[in-house]
This record gives sequence, C-alpha cells and structure tokens, in this order.
Amino acid sequence: MPDHPPGTEFDLILRYFAPLSTAEAGAYALLDDAASLAVSPGHELVITKDMMAAGVHFFSHDPPQTLGRKILRANLSDLAAMGATPRAYAMGLALPGDLAPGWLEDFAAGLAEDQAQFGVTLIGGDTIRAPDTLTLSLTAFGEILAGSALRRSGARPGDGIYVSGTIGDAALGLLVAKEQLDGIATADKEALLARYRLPEPRTELGSRLIGVASAAIDISDGLVADLGHVCAASEVGARIEANSIPLSGAAEAACRTTTNLFTNVLTGGDDYELLVCAPPSGDERLLQMASAAQTQLRRIGTIMEGAGVRVIGPDGDEMNIKRGGYTHF
Amino acid sequence: MPDHPPGTEFDLILRYFAPLSTAEAGAYALLDDAASLAVSPGHELVITKDMMAAGVHFFSHDPPQTLGRKILRANLSDLAAMGATPRAYAMGLALPGDLAPGWLEDFAAGLAEDQAQFGVTLIGGDTIRAPDTLTLSLTAFGEILAGSALRRSGARPGDGIYVSGTIGDAALGLLVAKEQLDGIATADKEALLARYRLPEPRTELGSRLIGVASAAIDISDGLVADLGHVCAASEVGARIEANSIPLSGAAEAACRTTTNLFTNVLTGGDDYELLVCAPPSGDERLLQMASAAQTQLRRIGTIMEGAGVRVIGPDGDEMNIKRGGYTHF
Repeated sequence: MPDHPPGTEFDLILRYFAPLSTAEAGAYALLDDAASLAVSPGHELVITKDMMAAGVHFFSHDPPQTLGRKILRANLSDLAAMGATPRAYAMGLALPGDLAPGWLEDFAAGLAEDQAQFGVTLIGGDTIRAPDTLTLSLTAFGEILAGSALRRSGARPGDGIYVSGTIGDAALGLLVAKEQLDGIATADKEALLARYRLPEPRTELGSRLIGVASAAIDISDGLVADLGHVCAASEVGARIEANSIPLSGAAEAACRTTTNLFTNVLTGGDDYELLVCAPPSGDERLLQMASAAQTQLRRIGTIMEGAGVRVIGPDGDEMNIKRGGYTHF
Repeated sequence: MPDHPPGTEFDLILRYFAPLSTAEAGAYALLDDAASLAVSPGHELVITKDMMAAGVHFFSHDPPQTLGRKILRANLSDLAAMGATPRAYAMGLALPGDLAPGWLEDFAAGLAEDQAQFGVTLIGGDTIRAPDTLTLSLTAFGEILAGSALRRSGARPGDGIYVSGTIGDAALGLLVAKEQLDGIATADKEALLARYRLPEPRTELGSRLIGVASAAIDISDGLVADLGHVCAASEVGARIEANSIPLSGAAEAACRTTTNLFTNVLTGGDDYELLVCAPPSGDERLLQMASAAQTQLRRIGTIMEGAGVRVIGPDGDEMNIKRGGYTHF
C-alpha cells in the first residue's frame, strides 16, 4: 500500500469507511473507481437519494453517532415505502475543517450499528472538504421483484388509510432541540428528541406490503402533506380522523399541555413512518403483515372521491390545516 | 395535480428535473419515493458517486450550463474506467438562496445536452436549501457484463501504460480561472479553461477496453497520483517518459513560456482521461479499440517490478515529483 498521510481522503476512507464495505465484494474495499452490484435474478434495483445539511436538517452539534444513521434511515424509509428490501448504500460527505477529534470515528461507528441492524453495506462514496458546514448525501439501494414496487398512485376511493408507529414525535423533538417545548417531563423531552435524531424506518413492514397495499409513501414532509401526495398521484381525496392518529405518550403529554401543538403533529416532517392504503378486502391481511413485522399499524381514515385531505377534529368538525408540511424553500 | 407554489422543492422538480427523467419509466417522473432500475440479464450495475462544492471544486460564478455537466462527466469517467456503459444518474443539489434568475434553467439545460450525448437519464435525487454555498452530489449508474469490470489491480510488469486524450489541460485551466497563467494566447487560455470546466469522459473507449486492458483508472487526482493508485493496487511499479505524455497545443504553449508548469501537468487533477494498462500482446487490439472509439490513445510508459512511479524527464534523468496529485485535505 502507498503511504497515506493521516487526514488525507485516502486515509479517511481506509480508516473509517473501508471497514464498512467488507460484506459486499463488489465494493472493492472502496479502492476502485466504482462499485459493482449484482441484482438477484427476476429482481430490479430500487434507488433513492437524500441530502442533509447542518443548519437545515440537523444541528452542527448533533451527536455524530446518529447523524449518518439519520440520513441512512431516511433513505431506508423511502425503500420501505416502495416495498424494497434494503441492500447497500453510497455516501457523500462534505466535511468542514473544524470537526472535533473522534467525530469521524463516532460517525462511522453509528453507521456500523445500522448496517448490522438493517442488513446494508457501504459500497462507495466521496469525501470532500466542505467550504462551510457539514453536508451529507446518501444513495440507498434495495431489491424488489421486478415490477412489484409500491407506488403513490394506486389508492382508490373506499381504501383504508393506515399509518405505522406514532406520528409527530420528530416534529415535537425538533421543538425540544430548539428549546421551544416546555411543560412536559424530561423523559418525554428525551424520547421526542431521540425520535427526531434517529427515526425508525419500517423496512420489515415495507417488503410485506407488496400484494396487499394499494399505495404507500413514507411520512417525511408531514402526515397531511404526504397523504396529499398520495391523493394527488392517485387522483383521489382523503378523510382522516384526528382522534385516530396514533400518538406516543410523550406527544400526548405535549399536546395536552400546549395549545395548537397538534398542528405540528399533523404537518411536521421527519417521522419516517409509513402511510399505507389498502382496499377493505385487504384490511385483515394488512394487519397480519404488520403483526409479522412487529410494527404497530393503525387505520386513521378513508380514501374518498375528489381531491385534497380533510382532517376531522375531535369535535367532529373539519380542522383548518394551514400549512401542509415541511418545505425547504 | 396539487398546487405547487413557485420556488418550492416540488415546483423545482416539476419544472426543471422531471423533464430530464422521461426516458426511464422507473424514474416515475421523480414523483415517487424512489426509482426502479431493471438491469439487463447477465449484467450487473456499476455505481459511482461524487460530491463537488463551490469554492473547492468549482467557482460560484462558473456558468451553470457546465456545472451539472462537470459532476455528471466526472462520474461517467469513473464508469468508463470500469468499462461500464452509462445508463442513469441521481442528483443531489444543495442550493443557496441567492441563485441568479435563470440559474436552474441553465443548469438543467446543460444536463439535457449531456443526457443526449451520453445516453443517460435522471432517475432521482434530492433538492435542499444550502446553508451557505452550492454543493452538488451525483450518483451514476452503468451496466456491464457480470464479472467483467476493469479494476486497478490487474497491471503486470511489462504491460504498456497508455493515456487517452491530452493530459494537464484542466490543471492549467484552473490556473487560467485563477488568473495565474499568462504569456499564452487568449484562444489557448480559453481552450484550457473549457477543459477545466467541461471534461470529456471517455465512455466510448471504456466499454471497449474489456478483455483487452489489464487495468484502468480515470485520471482525476493527477497522472502521477492515479498511476500510483494502479501501482499500489497491482503491487507493481511504473516508469513513464515525460516526452511521451500527450499535450494539447495550448498546454504545450503554456509549458514553453512558464518554467515548472510541466509539474502541474504531471500532478494536476480533473483531467478525466483514462489511464490504461495492457500486456504487449494487447497493444494492437487496444489501439484498434481506441480508433473505433475515435479517441486518441498514446503509450507513455511501462509497468515494472517494484513499487512507485518514476517519471523520466526530457534529459533522460528521473524527475523529482514532489506532490503526487490533488488532495482535498
């Protein structure tokens, strides 16, 4: 091997990232110009890409152990929404010059944990010097039986609307991070913050939805906005019941103590739960699949003729949702 | 379709990027959570990823028409070095708030030109608000017969060393961009600057190298550094003749007028030419392939036993190359 002075790109790759690539021979230990990825016969690759920047999607002081995992999990959530089984990822890192000692080691250690948990392998990437702040880019690859990808466009009037897990924790966790949420117990604050920093992609559920769900999306922009995407793609409307939306104990506590916080639950981003539609005939099978995936799935409403998302409040009246979801621009 | 206010991420995607995705049905018009990519039977996917940031890899005032094409071409060059045929790409954009009017339109128009030239299609990506400066991220996908990817590690003593095109233009073009290169004609300056801004990936040559080349790499870090990578991976040394290195007319003029500029030619990055090794028995076939690809290919030296890269100067003495190539850190 040539001599790679500490701190060079080669050195970073060898020390921190090549060890994450060993499970995939086609990654060539990150030492070649590109990686090769063989796709199982009869399958196709599902590909998704995200970027996240300090100051926009996370805080510069967020723990490095969770930063790489957050963007990885956001991409795994996209794969789950298509019904794909996660396989590999490539990562781009624009690193500022003032990273704390041990930062990269912690960052890579976090990725290693998630690789083990989700069965994915790093197969390539690029590490550059950032002119200013940290920016991450990740492209994730999953496999799926050819032609079976779940789409946003298959919802039909009468279909049930379901969500996994709990909704709104990440949006409330962001308020905790900004020190804008008070009046709840410290443990609740920590639970919300943890969900903001480290989402739980529903990869076990996603691949089980094929043949059952009529449409799926992951909730990244906010419940109302992402359901709106399904409605637009499927040319239908939707009606959901506020009382049916599953909340964590911490989110319930927060909504009890602070007025109007439920709007954050409905419109906040970063949940990375799945929103799934299925015809009434599929209801039982869908809940069986959720049980097999050990994932909570709750029906929150119904797909309707028409267009747009209507949220029925606890009083039975339609709620007026001003802002559909998170937008960067 | 839902209403997408101008300037939102959805609006940007619909206006500028969805039109670039139409040739690949699995891109789902960039409207779903991920893309599907079917790989031809018997083939595997070749995947490469690059990041580039304003102030590090390009200038903020560089023309938007060439910026997207530069990172796309850098990735296509990696695919060519593996012998892969380009197929598709995903793009991440971190956009600052102060983009000039028309910037994105010009950026997308440049990409459209390259899509037509290189036969690739945009299949996904992410557009975020940059906290500071413009950062681009691109993942490119090519196809190759399973198991046939060209590697850096196949060079053997006695193999000829060849390079495509001309070497050093981009490094000298960077000096032009920084107004640090004088004494040559304006037309020569413009030619060098054009090569810095818009490399010429050797995709036609790359796919023809399979079964002929023993090793290949694209010259992105600099001729000496990248040949060094081949030597390290192949556990061999190399000897190249300075007089054999192909220079453009503009680079020759620059090297004639300014002392020591030839070092920039040997060590400067961003050429995106191919460096190819082949056994003596393959020499004739290799040059036939270059001719078929309408790409100039010149032999510049020989793979040796041992380690490291030796450059023999015009006087027959070994040159002392201080800096092996471009490093970001």
